[in-house]
Amino acid sequence: MPFHVKKLLICAGAALVLSAPAAQAQTRKKSKAATPAAATKADRTDSLALRKIFDEALLRGESYDNLRYLTGTIGPRLSGSPQAQMAVEWGKATMEKAGFDRVYLQEVMVPHWVRGSRERGEIIGNKDKGIRVPVCALGGSIGTGGKLKAGVVEVHSFEELKALPDAAVKGKFVFYNRPFDDALIEPGQAYGRAGDQRRSGAIEAARRGAVGALVRSLTSARDDNPHTGAMAYAEGVAKVPGAALSTNAADQLSQLLKANPDLQFELEMECITLPEEKSYNVVGEIKGSKFPQEIITVGGHLDSWDLGQGAHDDGTGCVQSIEALRLLRVAGFRPERTVRAVLFMNEENGTRGGNEYARLAAQNKETHLAAIESDGGGFTPRGFSVEADPATVSKLARWAPLLKPYHAADISVGHGGTDIEPLQAAVHPKALIGYDCDSQRYFDIHHTAADTFDKVNRRELELGGASMAALIYLLSKYGL
Amino acid sequence: MPFHVKKLLICAGAALVLSAPAAQAQTRKKSKAATPAAATKADRTDSLALRKIFDEALLRGESYDNLRYLTGTIGPRLSGSPQAQMAVEWGKATMEKAGFDRVYLQEVMVPHWVRGSRERGEIIGNKDKGIRVPVCALGGSIGTGGKLKAGVVEVHSFEELKALPDAAVKGKFVFYNRPFDDALIEPGQAYGRAGDQRRSGAIEAARRGAVGALVRSLTSARDDNPHTGAMAYAEGVAKVPGAALSTNAADQLSQLLKANPDLQFELEMECITLPEEKSYNVVGEIKGSKFPQEIITVGGHLDSWDLGQGAHDDGTGCVQSIEALRLLRVAGFRPERTVRAVLFMNEENGTRGGNEYARLAAQNKETHLAAIESDGGGFTPRGFSVEADPATVSKLARWAPLLKPYHAADISVGHGGTDIEPLQAAVHPKALIGYDCDSQRYFDIHHTAADTFDKVNRRELELGGASMAALIYLLSKYGL
Repeated sequence: MPFHVKKLLICAGAALVLSAPAAQAQTRKKSKAATPAAATKADRTDSLALRKIFDEALLRGESYDNLRYLTGTIGPRLSGSPQAQMAVEWGKATMEKAGFDRVYLQEVMVPHWVRGSRERGEIIGNKDKGIRVPVCALGGSIGTGGKLKAGVVEVHSFEELKALPDAAVKGKFVFYNRPFDDALIEPGQAYGRAGDQRRSGAIEAARRGAVGALVRSLTSARDDNPHTGAMAYAEGVAKVPGAALSTNAADQLSQLLKANPDLQFELEMECITLPEEKSYNVVGEIKGSKFPQEIITVGGHLDSWDLGQGAHDDGTGCVQSIEALRLLRVAGFRPERTVRAVLFMNEENGTRGGNEYARLAAQNKETHLAAIESDGGGFTPRGFSVEADPATVSKLARWAPLLKPYHAADISVGHGGTDIEPLQAAVHPKALIGYDCDSQRYFDIHHTAADTFDKVNRRELELGGASMAALIYLLSKYGL
Repeated sequence: MPFHVKKLLICAGAALVLSAPAAQAQTRKKSKAATPAAATKADRTDSLALRKIFDEALLRGESYDNLRYLTGTIGPRLSGSPQAQMAVEWGKATMEKAGFDRVYLQEVMVPHWVRGSRERGEIIGNKDKGIRVPVCALGGSIGTGGKLKAGVVEVHSFEELKALPDAAVKGKFVFYNRPFDDALIEPGQAYGRAGDQRRSGAIEAARRGAVGALVRSLTSARDDNPHTGAMAYAEGVAKVPGAALSTNAADQLSQLLKANPDLQFELEMECITLPEEKSYNVVGEIKGSKFPQEIITVGGHLDSWDLGQGAHDDGTGCVQSIEALRLLRVAGFRPERTVRAVLFMNEENGTRGGNEYARLAAQNKETHLAAIESDGGGFTPRGFSVEADPATVSKLARWAPLLKPYHAADISVGHGGTDIEPLQAAVHPKALIGYDCDSQRYFDIHHTAADTFDKVNRRELELGGASMAALIYLLSKYGL
């Protein structure tokens, strides 16, 4: 960066507040709904409101300090763990301190899977001494019951597995080694396309008589961090252990298999599923001043995987959701519609919290306008991805000029979020909205021991909470 | 991130190649310059070309490995240092290996400032034992000639300094403690507004009879990393030492001063300016197939500060500039206009390389169409900031739909770059263009020991080189 100061940039600062309404006024001129003069006044009010929200966030934001406590003092928060319960209590206390109108818990039973202390993977070739490689159990896997040693067959898809003769699979580990498609611009797409290996790999392996599934970690990164994540078992299919290999380990195993197809892999995992535990969603509410019966939900998930600290996944979404409501409050904007921050429990391995929130919404005959979820990390804002009918997406896109100065103006058609998805069938909100941020680094650390507080940048995190608050301000004022 | 795969995102992937021309075709329909049918065909060709460039970068890009060598094996590359010379040789060899038509050096004399081994700062209050705080010499500072101990007067602007009586300043350190304005969305603006303290702090302090300048590090981060950077002396004004304090140290000093305005600061620095050294810009060229006399320059600066490894500042800009040309070549696009990758020497403390490149361009009566600089870090692309007349900016903005699938479509009016700026007066290119990327994290590490290779994400870096290659492809094909 230059010694020379960025001359032109310096002058551009003061224009920020004015540029948004000016741009939006232009857009509005084409609309028949409002006269240009009226639009300009409203737009200016909105533009100044957003600037106030962002000022609060950047100068006095609390997301970062909240996240430090949640990830550092409490730590990882797998469903059913004591830390998950500590997080519930922390969430409730934090919302109460923020002065919301009402804070309450929604009880929900959750799975309780425990990794255990011993996790070991070893490639055993012709030599006596094996090669230790980084592995971790996939979430929900059974343990190996001591050492499990078997041959390895490498595949890249279920089709490839299906085409193999029984003898090539039976009694072996199936090693799923299809990498991320690095050409995709959105790493989330690569994750989606590779995810079947982790999710259903053990089922498909067991159907063919294999003893276990070894899955290449779901990431573009080449390193020694194995990535955990949920895997499933199917009714009527034998349960076999499922483990993730780091990408370096997967590359190494693949290479060694080429030289020696008869090599063996030894896996040892002590993971176990305990009886379900009682847990909770944490809900905080600010009552709407004009339309209290219309609800806008904003949430993240309070549970996390047990490796790392659950920082980007999804501590950031939790603190941003609380912060979005707090920002509205401290900036002096009482929302016209009721706004709820929800810390969902058990997104990672069951979605019990999301399902229960939706079930209660239906049972209480609630009206839900929209739901927003932040579960793609706490990185620099880009905008929002929207599941809604085209007219609703267009309505949201109308606000893009107001969000543009904050680089949060990218309104695209896309996924809302796992926790808010059950609301769709239950109460038909007009839009499910995913907070969309820069995601290039997300899968480097996703579900690993490296998902820690130090990977989160304060400004990026606070800008995200402010972007969500800005959208809620507009949704609450104008509806959909 | 959800167990549940991002359903909608998965389907969206295949649409990427087609979405850009479709979007641009829509834009073009409004234009009278081209019939919709013709525009669609050209747009489709361009869209596929850009996709090919990004595929090459993401699947087989070389920026990351080049950067690993430049930052790790060579290391920091302050002008005049042996490492700067190694970097020149590396740059030349790397361009030759990439198969450019012509690779050559441009000789330039550069300042040779050396930090020395001893750097120490200590706050000394009433107690015998002082408090050691992290400091570093600002680039170009004189040394202290042993221990320099004096009182401290804190100010936040030159105006505040000016208003102080002589007795309050004379014989003391002036401590400039104006922080970044965190409310600004662009950290580069905050840098610009706080930069006078570092740049001219020692001059203004000396004018008032102070013995030295202590400057709060130019960053929003609160940590223990002092940030170096260039400072100046003025003719006829005494030279006094200038040092940066980490932000934590600055906060601490400020707090202690409130309790004890008579405390002293002890500074020890061994830095020294040696005679100028011979050095070089490194230039690589691909000759234009149709308009070889029209030149498009793309560059970064090869020198760096001596702390850290000069990774984001500006190793990334160097490897991206080489990569931009290499990508065009391996993707099979021979540019219509001549394209030059330039590794500029001495951006940080003199801009000698930038000045010499412009001087030679004028001397050789070259025609320069545009120049692009990457010197804002190797983070996720956002687009380009342009110094040009409004018509030229509009022409560039026409290509936004083609860049949109890569999130590099933000074409804004802004700074081009320090190294390409001298071209303006010398040969009047139609546009100076700065590569614009997400900058929220940049000033956390800028000019510090923490600007290291591990802070750079492979995909973000490669996306940047590809974005620059894409713009060059379009500039080379269509002109301006």
